[in-house]
Amino acid sequence: MSASDQTKAANQMWGGRFAEGPDAIMQAINASIGFDKRLYAQDIAGSRAHAAMLAAQGILTDSDAQVIREGLLTVLSEIKAGTFPFRVELEDIHLNVESRLTEIVGEAGKRLHTGRSRNDQVAVDFRLWVREQCDAAISGLTALMQAFLVQAEQGADWVMPGFTHLQTAQPVTWGHHMMAYVEMFARDRSRFQDARVRMNECPLGAAALAGTSFPIDRHMTAGALGFDRPTANSLDSVSDRDFALEFLSAASICAMHLSRFAEELVIWSSAQFRFVRLSDKWTTGSSIMPQKKNPDAAELLRAKLGRILGATVALFTIMKGLALTYSKDMQEDKEQVFDAADNLMLGLAAMTGMVSDMAANRESLAVAAASGFSTATDLADWLVRRLNLPFREAHHVTGALVAMAEQAGIDLPDLTLDQMRSVHPGITDEVFSVLGVENSVNSRTSYGGTAPVRVREQIARWKAALA
Amino acid sequence: MSASDQTKAANQMWGGRFAEGPDAIMQAINASIGFDKRLYAQDIAGSRAHAAMLAAQGILTDSDAQVIREGLLTVLSEIKAGTFPFRVELEDIHLNVESRLTEIVGEAGKRLHTGRSRNDQVAVDFRLWVREQCDAAISGLTALMQAFLVQAEQGADWVMPGFTHLQTAQPVTWGHHMMAYVEMFARDRSRFQDARVRMNECPLGAAALAGTSFPIDRHMTAGALGFDRPTANSLDSVSDRDFALEFLSAASICAMHLSRFAEELVIWSSAQFRFVRLSDKWTTGSSIMPQKKNPDAAELLRAKLGRILGATVALFTIMKGLALTYSKDMQEDKEQVFDAADNLMLGLAAMTGMVSDMAANRESLAVAAASGFSTATDLADWLVRRLNLPFREAHHVTGALVAMAEQAGIDLPDLTLDQMRSVHPGITDEVFSVLGVENSVNSRTSYGGTAPVRVREQIARWKAALA
Amino acid sequence: MSASDQTKAANQMWGGRFAEGPDAIMQAINASIGFDKRLYAQDIAGSRAHAAMLAAQGILTDSDAQVIREGLLTVLSEIKAGTFPFRVELEDIHLNVESRLTEIVGEAGKRLHTGRSRNDQVAVDFRLWVREQCDAAISGLTALMQAFLVQAEQGADWVMPGFTHLQTAQPVTWGHHMMAYVEMFARDRSRFQDARVRMNECPLGAAALAGTSFPIDRHMTAGALGFDRPTANSLDSVSDRDFALEFLSAASICAMHLSRFAEELVIWSSAQFRFVRLSDKWTTGSSIMPQKKNPDAAELLRAKLGRILGATVALFTIMKGLALTYSKDMQEDKEQVFDAADNLMLGLAAMTGMVSDMAANRESLAVAAASGFSTATDLADWLVRRLNLPFREAHHVTGALVAMAEQAGIDLPDLTLDQMRSVHPGITDEVFSVLGVENSVNSRTSYGGTAPVRVREQIARWKAALA
Amino acid sequence: MSASDQTKAANQMWGGRFAEGPDAIMQAINASIGFDKRLYAQDIAGSRAHAAMLAAQGILTDSDAQVIREGLLTVLSEIKAGTFPFRVELEDIHLNVESRLTEIVGEAGKRLHTGRSRNDQVAVDFRLWVREQCDAAISGLTALMQAFLVQAEQGADWVMPGFTHLQTAQPVTWGHHMMAYVEMFARDRSRFQDARVRMNECPLGAAALAGTSFPIDRHMTAGALGFDRPTANSLDSVSDRDFALEFLSAASICAMHLSRFAEELVIWSSAQFRFVRLSDKWTTGSSIMPQKKNPDAAELLRAKLGRILGATVALFTIMKGLALTYSKDMQEDKEQVFDAADNLMLGLAAMTGMVSDMAANRESLAVAAASGFSTATDLADWLVRRLNLPFREAHHVTGALVAMAEQAGIDLPDLTLDQMRSVHPGITDEVFSVLGVENSVNSRTSYGGTAPVRVREQIARWKAALA
Repeated sequence: MSASDQTKAANQMWGGRFAEGPDAIMQAINASIGFDKRLYAQDIAGSRAHAAMLAAQGILTDSDAQVIREGLLTVLSEIKAGTFPFRVELEDIHLNVESRLTEIVGEAGKRLHTGRSRNDQVAVDFRLWVREQCDAAISGLTALMQAFLVQAEQGADWVMPGFTHLQTAQPVTWGHHMMAYVEMFARDRSRFQDARVRMNECPLGAAALAGTSFPIDRHMTAGALGFDRPTANSLDSVSDRDFALEFLSAASICAMHLSRFAEELVIWSSAQFRFVRLSDKWTTGSSIMPQKKNPDAAELLRAKLGRILGATVALFTIMKGLALTYSKDMQEDKEQVFDAADNLMLGLAAMTGMVSDMAANRESLAVAAASGFSTATDLADWLVRRLNLPFREAHHVTGALVAMAEQAGIDLPDLTLDQMRSVHPGITDEVFSVLGVENSVNSRTSYGGTAPVRVREQIARWKAALA
Repeated sequence: MSASDQTKAANQMWGGRFAEGPDAIMQAINASIGFDKRLYAQDIAGSRAHAAMLAAQGILTDSDAQVIREGLLTVLSEIKAGTFPFRVELEDIHLNVESRLTEIVGEAGKRLHTGRSRNDQVAVDFRLWVREQCDAAISGLTALMQAFLVQAEQGADWVMPGFTHLQTAQPVTWGHHMMAYVEMFARDRSRFQDARVRMNECPLGAAALAGTSFPIDRHMTAGALGFDRPTANSLDSVSDRDFALEFLSAASICAMHLSRFAEELVIWSSAQFRFVRLSDKWTTGSSIMPQKKNPDAAELLRAKLGRILGATVALFTIMKGLALTYSKDMQEDKEQVFDAADNLMLGLAAMTGMVSDMAANRESLAVAAASGFSTATDLADWLVRRLNLPFREAHHVTGALVAMAEQAGIDLPDLTLDQMRSVHPGITDEVFSVLGVENSVNSRTSYGGTAPVRVREQIARWKAALA
Repeated sequence: MSASDQTKAANQMWGGRFAEGPDAIMQAINASIGFDKRLYAQDIAGSRAHAAMLAAQGILTDSDAQVIREGLLTVLSEIKAGTFPFRVELEDIHLNVESRLTEIVGEAGKRLHTGRSRNDQVAVDFRLWVREQCDAAISGLTALMQAFLVQAEQGADWVMPGFTHLQTAQPVTWGHHMMAYVEMFARDRSRFQDARVRMNECPLGAAALAGTSFPIDRHMTAGALGFDRPTANSLDSVSDRDFALEFLSAASICAMHLSRFAEELVIWSSAQFRFVRLSDKWTTGSSIMPQKKNPDAAELLRAKLGRILGATVALFTIMKGLALTYSKDMQEDKEQVFDAADNLMLGLAAMTGMVSDMAANRESLAVAAASGFSTATDLADWLVRRLNLPFREAHHVTGALVAMAEQAGIDLPDLTLDQMRSVHPGITDEVFSVLGVENSVNSRTSYGGTAPVRVREQIARWKAALA
Repeated sequence: MSASDQTKAANQMWGGRFAEGPDAIMQAINASIGFDKRLYAQDIAGSRAHAAMLAAQGILTDSDAQVIREGLLTVLSEIKAGTFPFRVELEDIHLNVESRLTEIVGEAGKRLHTGRSRNDQVAVDFRLWVREQCDAAISGLTALMQAFLVQAEQGADWVMPGFTHLQTAQPVTWGHHMMAYVEMFARDRSRFQDARVRMNECPLGAAALAGTSFPIDRHMTAGALGFDRPTANSLDSVSDRDFALEFLSAASICAMHLSRFAEELVIWSSAQFRFVRLSDKWTTGSSIMPQKKNPDAAELLRAKLGRILGATVALFTIMKGLALTYSKDMQEDKEQVFDAADNLMLGLAAMTGMVSDMAANRESLAVAAASGFSTATDLADWLVRRLNLPFREAHHVTGALVAMAEQAGIDLPDLTLDQMRSVHPGITDEVFSVLGVENSVNSRTSYGGTAPVRVREQIARWKAALA
């Protein structure tokens, strides 16, 4: 297509106001068709709903509406088939679809843009797309929660070290650790659900910014597109990108959770920890070191927060201080959300796969759980319960016993009763019963605690909830 | 207090494990009392609930619990009175309160820390604080919405230019523009409401990370502190900061809305626009230019998004890739949320004040609304309705008429009928009736449109909702 | 290519360690060839330099090196011609190039990877790419500075309002305003120059992480690739991405400057300001409002800071807390830098075009400069100079005169001498000479001031510097 | 002070233009004295230089200048002594100092503000402060590099595992690992040096925005304040915050480096790694788990990137799209930079202390270095060198040997020669000499490699450079 044809094509849509056509730089910075073509299905659905409503309201003839709605299906199948002739000089998906529609159906196609504008068109297209991503995130999270549930059920009573500050703190169970992530991803799911409810209002019919004088029925188009209601203010409708920001914020929190488990997987896969074995599916080798088995997928998942948070910062910065209503700055919203959503969904799928495939090294976990004075708190609690020491004193006594054991290079259960009594004479040999790791986890039966009985209750609760 | 006393004080709480005390740099980087003392009321409320529960469960004697609960009230009044001796060597608010309690009530004080840890203590304290901020944001937003409603009601039918790209687009009404912000701030409010519901679970009793072997009743403490239920996983309870991130995300979106209206106020206050006059209360003078009246408050509000988004990025980055459960990195959460919340509440109050005081320059708005070919769309729509032109052709005809008027240096209503007919012979003098600004806004009666009748419906709806 | 072939292909490069091949999700998250193929020219240049050095050191035979170097040129031309068979199962550009090389040249190709690793390969490829972007930014900034210089020279003495707080402050000259941006973009240029110097060290030869036992000559490869020297620590060489972060930081500051002028263009193009007329090349029309001429390019440039800052945040977050040395997280660096660099270069080009084409509305600027009591400071300064008032008193007197004029609805020069004397009896009619706008700008002759004589000096200085 | 007195005080400085005084909210959002009082020394230095210059130029009498300069020293000592009566109704440090000066010296004080404005005053104050922080960062980084050098020298030949993907990759030396950080922090230092040079231009004398008609000598004040030259454009001078953004960007990169070593310290301190023992000075205990020794300082340092990056994002977002010249938004710059600088300096000091005190566990490092097939690359390289295998084939052979050893549960040196020959018949028993860890590190003598001889060269180079 020649430059003058391009000018002509652009002029055709803009109405003859411009003497000159945009040059290459302007096209590169201005045209959105390179990325917004991804909204084709939403754009066509919106146009079909709009045409049906225009006919119902007597603004279009039934036959024009019929021709338009069928023509749009033809456009849809062309795009799906990869035969659609996208034209960058037509700037965006809206003009590409409409222009092709008019080629296909003739005059009627030119009547479609009555009572709407690209401003509300892109608002509805993008909102439909983001709504679908909420649904995808909810599904992906559900699958991931189920993968964690399987792990939790299998190892509900396997002991492992619980860490604070990456220091051995108290023994916990594998199942309990897995269930912590179920809680996190459940909150993520609930955030996407709330966001979906909030965004589920239809901006179509806000037109350029002020509404329209055509007797359109916005409730009809809203209903046809699965929205709960039309938006209540036309200015807000075309200048609002809250739904995208809320999606990005929820995605960032979710990606933060992914980054935490990914970090654990990287650390747990090290030769020093050996807590878990990742399947070959999610690891790779080295081009130079033949012995390597690198947890690449986990590392990449750890990084995804950066990417998604970056997109979030981008859109917040873009929206900062924009006078109402629509400004072209807002065109920069889509690539950010596309990239964040793609990476979130990929991340959820990859994590689900990794969690499903990974094998806990039960023995290593148990050995690690028993070392590092991990039952010191149990000892202190015993002193409180049996000897009625105030907790602060019990803590002090236990600290002295830990120091004694550490100097001797042994663990707490290896101290003799005499050694213990040298620190506090009231200690009896009953104390040894609380220094075992199994006893420790079994004793933590407070609600939400790590005792297997509690963990199994939570597993049952979540299995029911996800069923 | 001497260095060796400090060491002794620290050792007292840590249990004698450390041969050396922290030096000045460590204290500066490690101690949180400089900022977390702000959580004193929450900390004391949590401890009082904990003590009552311990007694109810038979873990503390009733008399010890009574002594502790009263002692805590004494501590509370000392802090409120400014007489509390905060000690930086006691690191944080928890140890400061507990240490002082023990000074006041003696031995019983040492029994308070049974069945809990600083990890769940800070989790419950901070969650209570953030929950209050949600409530404060909800209140502040309600007041701000009411201020906008007053402006909207006053000028429900005042015409002004509606802008896209900061170019005159179509006439709208002042009331409609004000109501756009009511919609935005209503979404903000609903986001804080959802966040509040989601965070309203009590982590107290998760103890260090694994739960506890003491027979505590977590539902009792949850209820006493106004939570809906206890959290369901102890590991998650002490490592979760989602509630803070969700608060910050909602605050960032809200601050983005503030930045947009602030930008409008700055532009509208310029000598070139003169759309609005801010009261002296929210403007300042210049130390060198005696004529200046600067919209300082609006500019500062425009900037607040930066500050709040910065805090959001900070906490996301801090939480990135933290292995479970509690890590000291998480101590960096509070200053970020404190600063963001303070600035959000200040911003809401200042904006409410500014909106309440500002005076729209009705005349300037009307003059601006009528210029810039603002009713060109009305002309195009008339061509569609009356001459049955396809919209794309009507757009083209109107473009030619705008070009003709622009070249002649006149506005659309100043063209003669003959001039109009030279572009399209079907035009009749009925067309002049749609070129008036008042007609234009009155005609946009689609749901959510700018017609005063629609705007008044929305005002009524919101007044009822906020009543 | 079948799944089992893919497995075979992957196994071939990894050395047979994996029983299973990566599945689709893993490939989607792990393979970088989709984006790192953009580094093909750098990768081939690095390999050619490496092969030449291996031969010079006797590690490869001269004939093998010759065959490899020519084979790599064949690969290069295949990629340029678009005929290169990129294979996603070969993961990245390095394996794709090497695998194809071996297809072309046979056995010799397998000898190329001696004494290096993908870790130092990607480090050198990416560093070469970023170095080129520094050069591109420097060129783009130079062109932009020249465009501003042309505007400045043309309007060195055109008066316009100088703003603080978007309120008229003092008259300045168009040339002076343009030159402010020359200063900003000159700092940007100097930042890219410093970054380029700092990054210009060659990591090739660091191998996987520890260096190599082959007697390689890193100074030779560094020189061949235009680096100042090899990097001094192999661990740092493969784990360092400072050069990318510094590039992104400099790009963010530059984008911030673009956003500021873009904002001015948007405001100046409004019907209320009319300070400047953008050419049709950089504006677009509306699909619904035929009269619109929207400053789209300026708006998009205003938004680019968001995008580039987002990329910066992304990479900082990705790099946070990564243990040495290379981790797969770092693979997420490239897309961020590619996108930021592309948008920066596009932004510089678009802004250069817009600045070159824009036409200041000299008359509007002059009218605006003279209104709003813009010479009040000149009056105050006159009171200091002639009546020897302390500045604070002069400021007070001027404030009273401004208030008097404002109430009367006139400007300062329209006050009578008597009116003035009623505020301060010492005022003489000489005062009127300082109330003119031209006088005002001509008088500001301090170094860096807005007086045309000063502005022309700066223009001359920069023209010489850029010549 | 009563409300009406406050109004009077404010009116005094603003010149009587405002009928009403700012109320509490406005004061809270608008007044900067709460934080900008930190700039008092810079403010007074700037004013003293300004007064001397005014006298030298004959704008002030010598005696007035003398009185002012001495009065300012009185103000300085009052502030240092803590007796200065800061007044929030005077908004900022500039008005507080000037107002107090006038109380002390009378009429002369009112003559100080000639030929300048608060806009250039704050610009010079803040720039002086940030310049000092660059110097402080440079000093802090030098001390930190020296601490790493001491560690490197001590363990120049201690072997440890080198990691990629946190998987054992190849043996390296402790000294080499320490020196990697010397390189990173050296780049940081060089970034602060470049930033310092770039920012070292004096904005004083730009006045409100346009320069001044008083015959000031900006070169004189620039020289007196240690600047290289005055800034060249007055508009840019008062609207530029590049120096702060560049400082924040450099600080973010530096904090990223701190976060990486902090992460290593956390991992290395775990019971599973035991690579390093942190001194008690930089660790803390637990309120509930008596055995804990938590690496709190390292964790806090890991988090600091979040805080500093947050400040960076904040200021970028604040500056986005601000029309020239000064806008009040820019007042939000200081708290961000103050907080980032404070935390950077604290972080550098704490890391220096931790590095100085930490003790590598040489034995654990050596054991870990020898496990995990860490010399597989050495084996592959031997196959290339001795058997002339192409590297890709050598990699394949080695992979098979690793798999064989792994299945047998032994390490590479434990394979028999027969076993090895079953994979490749050309292998001789010379191969065992390259499978030792010591040999491995000694062999990596390429420039920048991990061989102790290379490491000691780098140590010597840096010791000389820092001497």
